[in-house]
Amino acid sequence: MTSPLLLSDIEKGVLRLILNDPATRNSLSEAMMTALEEALDAAKSDPTVRVITIAANGPAFCSGHNLKEITAHRSDRDRGRAYFAQLMERCSALMLKIAGHPHPIIAEVQGIASAAGCQLVASCDLAIASDAAKFCTPGVDIGLFCSTPMVALSRNVAPKHAMEMLLTGDLIGAQEAWRFGLVNRVVSPNELSTAVFDLATQIAGKSTLTVKTGKQAFHQQRGMNLEDAYALASAIMTENLLAQDAEEGIGAFIEKRRPQWTDR
Amino acid sequence: MTSPLLLSDIEKGVLRLILNDPATRNSLSEAMMTALEEALDAAKSDPTVRVITIAANGPAFCSGHNLKEITAHRSDRDRGRAYFAQLMERCSALMLKIAGHPHPIIAEVQGIASAAGCQLVASCDLAIASDAAKFCTPGVDIGLFCSTPMVALSRNVAPKHAMEMLLTGDLIGAQEAWRFGLVNRVVSPNELSTAVFDLATQIAGKSTLTVKTGKQAFHQQRGMNLEDAYALASAIMTENLLAQDAEEGIGAFIEKRRPQWTDR
Amino acid sequence: MTSPLLLSDIEKGVLRLILNDPATRNSLSEAMMTALEEALDAAKSDPTVRVITIAANGPAFCSGHNLKEITAHRSDRDRGRAYFAQLMERCSALMLKIAGHPHPIIAEVQGIASAAGCQLVASCDLAIASDAAKFCTPGVDIGLFCSTPMVALSRNVAPKHAMEMLLTGDLIGAQEAWRFGLVNRVVSPNELSTAVFDLATQIAGKSTLTVKTGKQAFHQQRGMNLEDAYALASAIMTENLLAQDAEEGIGAFIEKRRPQWTDR
Repeated sequence: MTSPLLLSDIEKGVLRLILNDPATRNSLSEAMMTALEEALDAAKSDPTVRVITIAANGPAFCSGHNLKEITAHRSDRDRGRAYFAQLMERCSALMLKIAGHPHPIIAEVQGIASAAGCQLVASCDLAIASDAAKFCTPGVDIGLFCSTPMVALSRNVAPKHAMEMLLTGDLIGAQEAWRFGLVNRVVSPNELSTAVFDLATQIAGKSTLTVKTGKQAFHQQRGMNLEDAYALASAIMTENLLAQDAEEGIGAFIEKRRPQWTDR
Repeated sequence: MTSPLLLSDIEKGVLRLILNDPATRNSLSEAMMTALEEALDAAKSDPTVRVITIAANGPAFCSGHNLKEITAHRSDRDRGRAYFAQLMERCSALMLKIAGHPHPIIAEVQGIASAAGCQLVASCDLAIASDAAKFCTPGVDIGLFCSTPMVALSRNVAPKHAMEMLLTGDLIGAQEAWRFGLVNRVVSPNELSTAVFDLATQIAGKSTLTVKTGKQAFHQQRGMNLEDAYALASAIMTENLLAQDAEEGIGAFIEKRRPQWTDR
Repeated sequence: MTSPLLLSDIEKGVLRLILNDPATRNSLSEAMMTALEEALDAAKSDPTVRVITIAANGPAFCSGHNLKEITAHRSDRDRGRAYFAQLMERCSALMLKIAGHPHPIIAEVQGIASAAGCQLVASCDLAIASDAAKFCTPGVDIGLFCSTPMVALSRNVAPKHAMEMLLTGDLIGAQEAWRFGLVNRVVSPNELSTAVFDLATQIAGKSTLTVKTGKQAFHQQRGMNLEDAYALASAIMTENLLAQDAEEGIGAFIEKRRPQWTDR
């Protein structure tokens, strides 16, 4: 499940994935995407995993697509069209896998998150950044607008904030990203791993079924109108109420004791 | 129209509803939901009502569903399924009634607004909080994800903010709720009722038809694409322009006099 | 392309349009809308234009609809219905033209942006305000709810912020507008034109095709669900990758040289 490009360890229900390709600033090369896909898929069926964090080694968090791989395919007979199409679909599928993953996924952003790297942060459920982290969608500076990163970014922050990042390509600091709502918290670099791990273990201590139910419901109801969203959420709440963990959790709350979760 | 659980008074066109069940931290028990539904329905046809505020007695604003009522139905022959389903639908219908109500509804949040209590704040058109108020969606801590509160919360605040509240269950303070956009203003506890009443009377002094038209249009156009939203809003503006209150209001503005509203 | 009501100049690829009807506080009179429509249409086919800014002369940025024109049509045989309907459709079409325009449009807000003037700011891709600027949607005070401005406003800021502006009609300051996400930056009055021009020329220096592709994609994907948005954006990225400017831009980035844009 680990590879040289992607390190991982599990502790207290928290799977920590570490992007480990500092030479390419942790680019989302094909090999890196394969490693992430495999790790996320394996985590679905691993009963020891409850929460996932994505961290990175080196000065950059993630630099987005690997431009050398892209350039190499310009000499294909179709000038790269087929390769580019599958590359974009594959990266989009990876981001959708994060949103659709049963477990919460938390970005641990220690450095620059650029282009699809910024999209990766936006695609995670939660994000904590070091105050040294920076964010940008600089495709516009290389003639390639960050259109797929925009999908995630524009669903995280206000439209004028997204447009400013997308049209200027400028780096924004961690405090600005926090103000925009792109990250949940900003901490000092030496506190980052602990802050992420503490948040992850807090969530890992909750009922896995409940967390899974809620994350899925969040994405399902998101684009619906208010009536449809309530109809869906009411049906989900009813099923959730009938689960063992809700009976146990509510009982424990009333009896002022600690709940014992059993569902997955 | 009043009940022991729900107090009310009307002053200057402002109907103030006061959740009055401190013993259950103003839980949305069936009786409380009935009282709120009846009060909101009655307000629709009461010509003296122009704006509604929802306040609460005791240290909590509203604790959400009544867990004892829920637990009591676990011994039903269907383990509570039918009860839970109607309970969730009913609570959702109450929140939809707030959004669909012709008059603006303002939450006056003096204490903790938890779970469906937080949803109640999110469902109101406006909210002012005391700096002692706190907000949380802690269902995840009792095995019951706050899926229905999420519907309102995720339409009020940025997704990472909503997810943090939903996945951690943590309390956030009034300042954080203000930063997230969940409440409009934060004031000191002793200024709260005055601040809410002043805001309510300001709005109550405007044309009732105009306010009603606008609140309805807000919700109708919300999920539409830009073209459809403009087509709808243009049609609404045209009708609004033909109303007596618009003729009077525009005339008064041009003549620099105070308008006299007549439409309802 | 210029008219007494609308001044314009072009410098370094930036078309600066200046609302020039201080006597009506730069109202969106029929003549002003005609001038704006014509200027925006002409800019589409003018190869020297890459970015557009909208500024204003006088103490107000834009006061919204011209109420005297509206009132004059109350004596029409249909009490103005046909006129009001075409006026609202026309103003909505102008705002849609801004969103659909191939070039980024930046509002330069030096004074009050009121009603449809506030909508104009919200409809622009980016906005910089002087700290003397103010914003409001005060239709509610003249019996005419700002329903069409609401379409743009409610797609820019959180719902409670939009509702507060719409229901109270109150002026908000530039700092509050910045906090809400309605403007990107606030600068001192004497820095405003330079700040807007600097931002505009920064964007004008990028590949026109790339910027156009991105702005169009932003609006196309906006209301879609996540899967559909990614399918669209992936297809757009693939085409973008095959464009000359992307090949040049990525090549220049890898070779650490300045790109030469050729696409439009």
